[in-house]
Amino acid sequence: MNQQIAIGVDLGGTLVRVGAFDTDGQLLFQNEAKIASIKPESGIRLIEQLIHETLASINLPSLLGIGIGSTGPVDPLRGTINNPYTLAGWNNVPIVERLNKAFDTPVRLENDADTVALGEYWQGAGRGSKRLYAVTVGTGVGTAFIVDGKIYRGLDGSHPEGGHQLIDPNGPECYCGHRGCWESLISGPAISSRARSAPNNDHLIDLALGDPSRIEARFVAEAARAGDATAVAIMQQAAHDFSFGIINVISFFVPDVLVLSGGVMKSADLFLPTLEETLKTPNPMVPFERVRILPAQLGYYAGLCGSAYTILSENL
Amino acid sequence: MNQQIAIGVDLGGTLVRVGAFDTDGQLLFQNEAKIASIKPESGIRLIEQLIHETLASINLPSLLGIGIGSTGPVDPLRGTINNPYTLAGWNNVPIVERLNKAFDTPVRLENDADTVALGEYWQGAGRGSKRLYAVTVGTGVGTAFIVDGKIYRGLDGSHPEGGHQLIDPNGPECYCGHRGCWESLISGPAISSRARSAPNNDHLIDLALGDPSRIEARFVAEAARAGDATAVAIMQQAAHDFSFGIINVISFFVPDVLVLSGGVMKSADLFLPTLEETLKTPNPMVPFERVRILPAQLGYYAGLCGSAYTILSENL
Repeated sequence: MNQQIAIGVDLGGTLVRVGAFDTDGQLLFQNEAKIASIKPESGIRLIEQLIHETLASINLPSLLGIGIGSTGPVDPLRGTINNPYTLAGWNNVPIVERLNKAFDTPVRLENDADTVALGEYWQGAGRGSKRLYAVTVGTGVGTAFIVDGKIYRGLDGSHPEGGHQLIDPNGPECYCGHRGCWESLISGPAISSRARSAPNNDHLIDLALGDPSRIEARFVAEAARAGDATAVAIMQQAAHDFSFGIINVISFFVPDVLVLSGGVMKSADLFLPTLEETLKTPNPMVPFERVRILPAQLGYYAGLCGSAYTILSENL
Repeated sequence: MNQQIAIGVDLGGTLVRVGAFDTDGQLLFQNEAKIASIKPESGIRLIEQLIHETLASINLPSLLGIGIGSTGPVDPLRGTINNPYTLAGWNNVPIVERLNKAFDTPVRLENDADTVALGEYWQGAGRGSKRLYAVTVGTGVGTAFIVDGKIYRGLDGSHPEGGHQLIDPNGPECYCGHRGCWESLISGPAISSRARSAPNNDHLIDLALGDPSRIEARFVAEAARAGDATAVAIMQQAAHDFSFGIINVISFFVPDVLVLSGGVMKSADLFLPTLEETLKTPNPMVPFERVRILPAQLGYYAGLCGSAYTILSENL
């Protein structure tokens, strides 16, 4: 008998991963390839090839569809990737139409912040939660909101950007056009930038082998753990700004579960105590204390299974 | 033939209004009474009496149910009003159970920020919009979010409080437990408070007949229009903080329609130019320019018809 499967495609700026999932959510096969600096035409052929290999590995597959989670911006309604920022040349690429023709099957395209959150909803930290809000702190700050197992979309299918909420009117400028948004204050590059311009940053420059432009956020975290006063101050400020933004997420959404991933979880020891302290402030109106704040459980696998889930959720 | 109707009850801190609506959304009859400083037991009897009078005015009414929009906090799932702040003594009042027994009909209880938004969705500025976000600036800052004609609820049925989003880490303290939330910066009392402690506020004190404690927000708006420099500065700061918060609402929700009401619309000439200017900042990720920002259309009627709509929406 044929085996019903969905293909998940996790398209990042560096790697593309492809996985086949059965209707029980089991991963049957996966493969991957480097996508960095590959142009759209070759990139799509590469993805098609990975999908063909994946299908070939399965005995009598019956393909329900292909779900793609891509580094954004993407247009889920038109099915195009509009991301020349982290996928060089991928502007207005009609990937849905292309894969739909190549495999004669339904194809969905979503922002990868959404597919990762969907994966954590389906198989990870937010299993079964009615309202899941996900925050990923890394090079940027990505957010996603899953309600009743569905991706929340703004007007015209747009992906909201909670990472660009404004937090500090006197904060640094951001490419979003404003000053002091969350991302400009707590992302990896934001922390490096603060460290470069901080007074008494000699120890941090040492960690970057003498070159201030090479100070990375992880050096700042490391130095803070070792007690360097400058690094401690920078991480404390970042933890404060992080907590401020989380308070706003809760005030706006009151989610059942808030899933955290990225750098903020790698430096959980530096971020979470401040957050816990902040959340203890009694609030007469919103049940802050009942929101479960959890680390993401699935790593990269969340994006893969969440992409497949965009198809499977319609077939379960 | 019997006429199918729903009763809407708009319960404020000063007045309670009761209206009967038919399934076409027409108001058939309304009446009202003062509720300020009336205790729960007498208050419920008063509301029952208003409903009886309303029903008596209609020829052969067939009652589909009663929807209540109450000044919050309320617990819509348990059906209780927990608001001793603006309804003296109304703590844990099981109004749903009481009216359900008295009229043998379904009864719904919602926060009035939600019923007002629902009314604007049904018959007002946000008619038919898929995602409507409503902001009311007055004594406090209330927010509501209507998706596909339904009230968005946080965990355990809670009403999110976008009015307490944190905007300025150095702002004033608020009863929400934090500093610099939206309400602490732009509500009527926030503006009065800024005016009282501002330097060179002689003109504002004159408008309050010499008593600084009696400076009201509307005096500040009036003086700003007349060109008083202190008042202009206060209103400009409030307009800036208002815009900051609106940017965040859009970044988080990307609603189709954003409905504004309360003091911010009474001083639209002082608030909206700054907002329009702020929204012009190009944003590469969120379609700010496509969000329709509209004044509320229905005034107090929104709360009345929105309360009835909590019942009618289940029967249409």
